[in-house]
Amino acid sequence: MSLADSRPCPAGPVRGRPRSEAVERAILEGVMQLLEEGVPLAELSIERIARTAGVGKATIYRRWSGKEELFIDVVRAAEPPDPELPGTSMRDDLLVLLENLRQRGLASRSSALLHNVHTQMKSNPRIWAAYHENVIAPRRALVLDVLRRGQRDGELRPDVDVELANDLFVGPILVRSVLRPDAELPEGLAGQILDTVLAGLRPVSSTVA
Amino acid sequence: MSLADSRPCPAGPVRGRPRSEAVERAILEGVMQLLEEGVPLAELSIERIARTAGVGKATIYRRWSGKEELFIDVVRAAEPPDPELPGTSMRDDLLVLLENLRQRGLASRSSALLHNVHTQMKSNPRIWAAYHENVIAPRRALVLDVLRRGQRDGELRPDVDVELANDLFVGPILVRSVLRPDAELPEGLAGQILDTVLAGLRPVSSTVA
Repeated sequence: MSLADSRPCPAGPVRGRPRSEAVERAILEGVMQLLEEGVPLAELSIERIARTAGVGKATIYRRWSGKEELFIDVVRAAEPPDPELPGTSMRDDLLVLLENLRQRGLASRSSALLHNVHTQMKSNPRIWAAYHENVIAPRRALVLDVLRRGQRDGELRPDVDVELANDLFVGPILVRSVLRPDAELPEGLAGQILDTVLAGLRPVSSTVA
Repeated sequence: MSLADSRPCPAGPVRGRPRSEAVERAILEGVMQLLEEGVPLAELSIERIARTAGVGKATIYRRWSGKEELFIDVVRAAEPPDPELPGTSMRDDLLVLLENLRQRGLASRSSALLHNVHTQMKSNPRIWAAYHENVIAPRRALVLDVLRRGQRDGELRPDVDVELANDLFVGPILVRSVLRPDAELPEGLAGQILDTVLAGLRPVSSTVA
């Protein structure tokens, strides 16, 4: 697995020295290699990662405070990168965010590494909490921002609970990705969800009545 | 944990002899007791269950083909029972089904046993597949039936994809129950989801336009 396409991680840890992208990449790829060889997360020591990447332990600790933080950057590098928002309308932005979520769902199904990584994370409460705080919570906050802007701009009814709206938009993709691995995540699903939720399910006559 | 309130399991295995409810209950409670004592699923042999329940192994095999089937009945007995549908309208039926899903989410959070059972199931592909086929799939089929009836009766737009509609209704509750254990599952959530999805999120003027 190559990291060539992955973006730098702006939400990552603050480091004491200027980054060396090459060293960082070698370390992240070292962790991926060990995971691909089937080494369980619990046995993934900083010492072993350093040996695999051909660096000293201090080089790793200079960049990450510990295994949890390093592992989260590995997940982030293995996932499709977070998208740029067009900012042209609430619908346009949500479409990009939901399509990215669908792509992550597909990636998690097709990549044994990502699947393995997600499973291991969920069975490790500290890493799961750190992943949640550093990766999932910011993504969720971004959707909530887009929804609030939509309310201001008249694209979303002002009385709608934006937290519930978020869950309605992401729910079908998450449920299919995580809980029903045999369910379809077809092209066009993001737009279908958006238009269905925005329009509502009631027959038009009873909406007007 | 008592099984006194649990209903019989109509979707359970076909047994060769008339049931003895008391024996069955003793066996299910034996499994629960072992789980509560922290015995992992992998170590839960039929022999050990028989000893705990004070019955012979043959008594268990007469009722269940093996550990997977028995374990699924344990989960079913520990969860809030499936509800009766009023059948008065699509909305009424969906409200009962979603409220039951919310109750199951709450039970899974508050009951260490259920939480433990769900975690163990997910880490065992055979049991997870059997649970999915015998418990989750029939529940999902029931929601889809209610939605199709709603389409026939004019409560749901005929062009709506009922599989997507199902995921929109259950998605927020499942996401909060399973993926965001700190999220709220407040009273009234089922009705809020229903009314929000049926009405749609667009401002009324643009719905009419």
